[in-house]
Amino acid sequence: MSQHKYILDEASIPTHWYNIEADLPERTPPPLDYTTGKPMEAAKLETIFAKTLLEQEMSAERYIEIPEPVREIMCQYRPSPLYRALRLEKELGTPAKIYYKFEGVSPSGSHKTNSAIAQAFENKRCGTKKVTTETGAGQWGTALSHACNIFGLECVVYMVRCSFDQKPYRKAIMEIFGGKTIPSPSPFTEAGRAILAKDPDCRGSLGIAISEAVEDAVKDPQTKYCLGSVLNHVLLHQSIIGLEALKQLEMANDYPDIIIGACGGGSNFAGIAFPFIGEMLRGGKKVDVLGVEPAACPSLTKGKYAYDFGDVARQTPLIKMYTLGSSFIPPAVHAGGLRYHGMAPQISNVARQGLMRARTVQQLDVFRDAIQFARAEGITPAPESSHAISAAMDEARRCRETGESKTILFNLSGHGHLDMTAYLEYFAGNLSNYEYPENEIAMALSCLPVCE
Amino acid sequence: MSQHKYILDEASIPTHWYNIEADLPERTPPPLDYTTGKPMEAAKLETIFAKTLLEQEMSAERYIEIPEPVREIMCQYRPSPLYRALRLEKELGTPAKIYYKFEGVSPSGSHKTNSAIAQAFENKRCGTKKVTTETGAGQWGTALSHACNIFGLECVVYMVRCSFDQKPYRKAIMEIFGGKTIPSPSPFTEAGRAILAKDPDCRGSLGIAISEAVEDAVKDPQTKYCLGSVLNHVLLHQSIIGLEALKQLEMANDYPDIIIGACGGGSNFAGIAFPFIGEMLRGGKKVDVLGVEPAACPSLTKGKYAYDFGDVARQTPLIKMYTLGSSFIPPAVHAGGLRYHGMAPQISNVARQGLMRARTVQQLDVFRDAIQFARAEGITPAPESSHAISAAMDEARRCRETGESKTILFNLSGHGHLDMTAYLEYFAGNLSNYEYPENEIAMALSCLPVCE
Repeated sequence: MSQHKYILDEASIPTHWYNIEADLPERTPPPLDYTTGKPMEAAKLETIFAKTLLEQEMSAERYIEIPEPVREIMCQYRPSPLYRALRLEKELGTPAKIYYKFEGVSPSGSHKTNSAIAQAFENKRCGTKKVTTETGAGQWGTALSHACNIFGLECVVYMVRCSFDQKPYRKAIMEIFGGKTIPSPSPFTEAGRAILAKDPDCRGSLGIAISEAVEDAVKDPQTKYCLGSVLNHVLLHQSIIGLEALKQLEMANDYPDIIIGACGGGSNFAGIAFPFIGEMLRGGKKVDVLGVEPAACPSLTKGKYAYDFGDVARQTPLIKMYTLGSSFIPPAVHAGGLRYHGMAPQISNVARQGLMRARTVQQLDVFRDAIQFARAEGITPAPESSHAISAAMDEARRCRETGESKTILFNLSGHGHLDMTAYLEYFAGNLSNYEYPENEIAMALSCLPVCE
Repeated sequence: MSQHKYILDEASIPTHWYNIEADLPERTPPPLDYTTGKPMEAAKLETIFAKTLLEQEMSAERYIEIPEPVREIMCQYRPSPLYRALRLEKELGTPAKIYYKFEGVSPSGSHKTNSAIAQAFENKRCGTKKVTTETGAGQWGTALSHACNIFGLECVVYMVRCSFDQKPYRKAIMEIFGGKTIPSPSPFTEAGRAILAKDPDCRGSLGIAISEAVEDAVKDPQTKYCLGSVLNHVLLHQSIIGLEALKQLEMANDYPDIIIGACGGGSNFAGIAFPFIGEMLRGGKKVDVLGVEPAACPSLTKGKYAYDFGDVARQTPLIKMYTLGSSFIPPAVHAGGLRYHGMAPQISNVARQGLMRARTVQQLDVFRDAIQFARAEGITPAPESSHAISAAMDEARRCRETGESKTILFNLSGHGHLDMTAYLEYFAGNLSNYEYPENEIAMALSCLPVCE
């Protein structure tokens, strides 16, 4: 048998999440209240989020126990497999070793389920009846619909309109799992109506959908908002990916030289990378950590490190992050999950401290590499995850030139079964490379809130 | 941790397929040549199929070794998981225990990959350059596209037009894997042109697509035809499902009272059931084996046991099977993989000998139960597989009435990620129950070839 699949048994699912906050040389700046310029009061945040999730959000404990019911539900699909891409390596003619963690085995088809189950559980525990959220690619909305169904919570998903139109199957699967999907901007919120008044054909953005979902949540004390990325507690939940990968690479008797993840809000990237960065910060082996963005929405590579709103309508607290400006609406590219104007504060902090690097990739390269990967490995990746694939293949191609036998690990955060429209468009020759929206970003950055 | 997932290690992938022919009290009748009325000559069959696959087709050996390269490729996704549906049992309030084998973990998302890899391997070994095939739901075409890509074979897929239109994502994934998809009936074959001349809007059927694929194959000695179901060698390849399930139920310290599979051509049903029927025939425990058909295409329940053609254009050998008549074109229901006029000869023989029973289910019940299953178990099933789910849930509901604690095993042959159109139609209220096409079937049965 070929040594290319590393499977842990059920008992090896981590018992604790890893919180990078404990190991960072400088703490991540707290969210600020725009009206006061001071750190947000807990009571105000509790109108939006479940209390126990806020405790996780603020914690600096290195390890936080995963509640047993959450672990039990995750058992259905975890531990997720780690593969060595032997066939792809051979095709690329590279001396590099390529490993990937495959998170597409979950009910939503992506890593998002890891946090959705944890968030639905904590909301249930706190007495929440209904949750609202936004979704870009549809993966987070699917994950939360599924998790809410398990815990008997109502789930309303504001889905970025361009993704809603590009990915009709996403609506179907959210409905199968019992979630209600609303294309955003919608006429059902003030934030949505304000946008539609200015531009009735607005294609939406994650920033707009967040505004709508938050507005819907704060109206009712038994309704809370859930976010699928960006926040500390979401990144915490995703650490399970890297923690498992550490054990699986030990099985393979290997350790990565390079770790790669696609970056939208940052949760899948942090999931694979933070446990390894933690090892490094505690004296372990130095690894080259690479975040990959679409050239159309390059927050880490072209953004400013500043306090900014998390949404377009300026309803969220201010968060310190690399941002393109909360009023920036990224072009309607096919990797809908990567269309966010900012980057998770913890990742921004990690980048600021020189613990990682970032680069952009181009849409046509991403699809070309996704197809080569699918043919070699038999897994059809989501367009978002394919950004990581393309960068990993670039690193492997570089090794072919230099003759280096580097060990590359990337996160294959989800399958693309529900996002085939993008591939159909690619095959039809309808896709083009990303244009860097320089003027729009400059304008949005000129409108950053003044708060420091 | 909950005891609901039974995972075998890689080394437990069976080394041999199980051939039910060795244990059947009466051998399955051989295919006949319509022109002579005598068993088909091997030389004639070799113009259609790879020689080594024909050897498997004719074999009465109980165990046939799985070639090492085939096992190695199957390692990527096998052994497939066996789940106990604890959450579903609880929701149904049944004392029954429900287990399901999940074949949706393969590159094609279904059991079809098990035979596709074996068929592509044997064709490569025999010097084939190109293979042609038909596909109904698209699962088989996806599986063969993937397998051919691995072995460097060209792959042309004639896809039943109603499925081609219902399932646009299937075309995308076949193209990702390098397969060429042609909607059938097509203008590229005589068989297709003859059908289109009579009915330019013909929605197609598996019987028509087979005619086109066979015609395309026999034109060129280096092109062979591959079939995704019906034939003995395909059922042989699928036996790996039941062989693994036997081991996994041993881990669970359990044994089924009822085994259930959806029946189109019969390959996923035979895959799960034949190894257990074999145990029974060799003196093991008696099990109740149930094949499930759509009421729109009820070959086992309403067909006649007779020699008939496998295709509409009467190009194939005659095979002895339960048939609705090869000229019968089933209604364009959403379970496209179950739209075949006949049933695999070995299954027909098993049914004839009283070793199994069959029933039909209705479309609206199937989707209602599929959704309840998805919500409980976190897996979105293919419409075809959902026929087995619905029947399994019926058995479990019956146990609730009788108080019996039966052990039910069914085959969840594939996921539905690429077939979401059917669910969208269901939610929109556009689906109705199947009508039993009594007149069409009576007419087709009156045209059976006279050969006995």
